[in-house]
Amino acid sequence: MTRLRHIPSNVMAGFQKQNISINAPQEELRVLGIDASLRSTGIGVIDYNGTSMKYIDGLVIKNKANAPLSACLFNLSSELEAYIDKHKPVHVAIEGIFYSRNARTALRLGHARGVLIETCSKAALPIYEYAPRKIKQAVTGMGTATKEQIQHMMMRVLNLEKLPQEDVGDALAIAITHIHNMSGIASLAPKPI
Amino acid sequence: MTRLRHIPSNVMAGFQKQNISINAPQEELRVLGIDASLRSTGIGVIDYNGTSMKYIDGLVIKNKANAPLSACLFNLSSELEAYIDKHKPVHVAIEGIFYSRNARTALRLGHARGVLIETCSKAALPIYEYAPRKIKQAVTGMGTATKEQIQHMMMRVLNLEKLPQEDVGDALAIAITHIHNMSGIASLAPKPI
Repeated sequence: MTRLRHIPSNVMAGFQKQNISINAPQEELRVLGIDASLRSTGIGVIDYNGTSMKYIDGLVIKNKANAPLSACLFNLSSELEAYIDKHKPVHVAIEGIFYSRNARTALRLGHARGVLIETCSKAALPIYEYAPRKIKQAVTGMGTATKEQIQHMMMRVLNLEKLPQEDVGDALAIAITHIHNMSGIASLAPKPI
Repeated sequence: MTRLRHIPSNVMAGFQKQNISINAPQEELRVLGIDASLRSTGIGVIDYNGTSMKYIDGLVIKNKANAPLSACLFNLSSELEAYIDKHKPVHVAIEGIFYSRNARTALRLGHARGVLIETCSKAALPIYEYAPRKIKQAVTGMGTATKEQIQHMMMRVLNLEKLPQEDVGDALAIAITHIHNMSGIASLAPKPI
């Protein structure tokens, strides 16, 4: 278990006096992070008990380069559905939208992202999104961190024995960004999409 | 029932002599056409018996402008699933990709299109795509036809009593384009995506 930078008890007491509610969950918050892509979607699960985080699992959903689009989308959906069934997360965090990508890339990513969001929605899970820059900033302190820097940071922050796979590292970073954002002032908490 | 421009019997006999197989289905081919969009997806069903086409049904799946993305995608999927269950099409035709759209529009459309394709794929239906220009060309003879021109053409070609809704007109046009493409030389028939 890794301690999360959290609100000091005296500050918390001040908030409570002013009747500002704090999002420190009493029960465990299990977050599923998703790094969406048509060919290689990273997913990972982290538990947060209000003060510390624990790595639960990570997986890459692969699709072959020559597989038909419809088969890839079906595979993404059924693999994610099975993963949700197995790990029973309560929140989902996914990367926000890249506006700088070109239309072709955006459409491809959109297909995958749409199917993944719909699969979570069918499982009645609230879904939160975070901008790529915000995720990098949250986990490395730099908005321009590389995938490798993120993998190393995830290994350290979550006390992993080895580097997570690239896309799993990103998925875990997205989950951690969500935990950071949920463990603040309730009225400033993010809204699901 | 509307007669489709089809291969004359003497030409057909010539093909048969040369052992070229023709895609004139012996059984009825029920085609579901989809005009994908996040807020207003048109769907429609047409039967083709090898020589003539018959309009079966049309529907618009609406999402409110302020509905969350996850709810919209879930709604698209569940409405389409129910529609497939009800009408039992055997092929699906959907509009191909617009490369001229900007990244933001492409991503929005991609979300909807991905979910719709995945829903058909889950129902084990083969999905075919046609470029927007090809659809307009196939049903009006002009690659630049307006939505209104397509609605009027659908009303005439399918002997409808009134104009179909805009998005249903497009969905029917996509289904007809597929029927045109399937009723040619088998080796030139389109491949599912």
